[in-house]
Amino acid sequence: MDLLGLLALGELLAFERMVFDARLAPDLARRAALSEAAVGEIRNYRLLADRLAELGADPAEAMAPFKEAFRSFDASTSPRDWLEALVKVHLGDAVADDFIRAVSAGLEEGDRELIATVLAETAAADLAAEEIRAAVKADPAVTGRLSLWARRLVGEGINRAQGVAAANERLTGLIVGDGGTLDALLRRLTRAHQDRMKSVGLNN
Amino acid sequence: MDLLGLLALGELLAFERMVFDARLAPDLARRAALSEAAVGEIRNYRLLADRLAELGADPAEAMAPFKEAFRSFDASTSPRDWLEALVKVHLGDAVADDFIRAVSAGLEEGDRELIATVLAETAAADLAAEEIRAAVKADPAVTGRLSLWARRLVGEGINRAQGVAAANERLTGLIVGDGGTLDALLRRLTRAHQDRMKSVGLNN
Repeated sequence: MDLLGLLALGELLAFERMVFDARLAPDLARRAALSEAAVGEIRNYRLLADRLAELGADPAEAMAPFKEAFRSFDASTSPRDWLEALVKVHLGDAVADDFIRAVSAGLEEGDRELIATVLAETAAADLAAEEIRAAVKADPAVTGRLSLWARRLVGEGINRAQGVAAANERLTGLIVGDGGTLDALLRRLTRAHQDRMKSVGLNN
Repeated sequence: MDLLGLLALGELLAFERMVFDARLAPDLARRAALSEAAVGEIRNYRLLADRLAELGADPAEAMAPFKEAFRSFDASTSPRDWLEALVKVHLGDAVADDFIRAVSAGLEEGDRELIATVLAETAAADLAAEEIRAAVKADPAVTGRLSLWARRLVGEGINRAQGVAAANERLTGLIVGDGGTLDALLRRLTRAHQDRMKSVGLNN
């Protein structure tokens, strides 16, 4: 339930963040496109909240312990323009997916199926990747700035993840499984993130 | 096309506004519920934008002339709390529906069907009406403040509508049809609004 609460809040806030940041788009068509892509996240939120209710939990209560971590992450990583917003969408989505994949092995079948549905939603990440690639191609000078921004996002993300883990032993146990450590997981996520940055034309 | 552009932008911005204002909710469950209800608006936006494209128009261009009117309306009617946000959702949705109904008679069949689909979307307005009724019942003291707020919203809305009409003769012609005047239409919308305010427990 801790894990489902964390994921549900992550999806709800990813939705809100995308709709907010869509205002940074250079035109109304792209602004609307990011909002439309964000709908996949609020649908995922609903699936996760329904699962929590099915398990007898109050979704709002299950999400509450993680509110502050997300709030402080967002406060320290507010994008200044459309490309920074897209890097945050692409990177945030991808790191979240890697994280979900890493922990889903330990879950029971119903939850694993739910997770598969959540992971199948890639509209926002695809839109962001396409736009970033086009921007880097049109003006290679943005690469350095966006690469730096991506590193900062990952750094802040790792900080918050360590904070959440330190405050919630049960969740940490579930996340690392037996034998693993949180640091090893975070290193793995960071490596996968670096490969992905390369694929949209950014540096590690 | 002017009319479809106005409606499309109205739906896109209604979606964004609801997601922003959802942050005023007293708990995460209601915050998520308003965001979920808002999805109907972005779906309506997509229907209207597709129709514009079908007619050979660029949706972003068709929407652009109305951006400033919506922006200044929102800047002057920023809700201070959850109940004010809900009154804006309920009232905005209802006035928009009345307006659409008033003008749809003059449209061709394909567009009339599209408008029927747009009007059938009432998730956000229903949620808002239910919450407002419950709040008024729980604390009748909020009635005065919310009634005043609703009157202010209508007043600001009429101001912007007159501004848009003055700047766009073609649209005004379409809106008032033959024989009618914009003032008569605005009076009719105001009257319908007053009836609706009563139905959720507010005063005119």
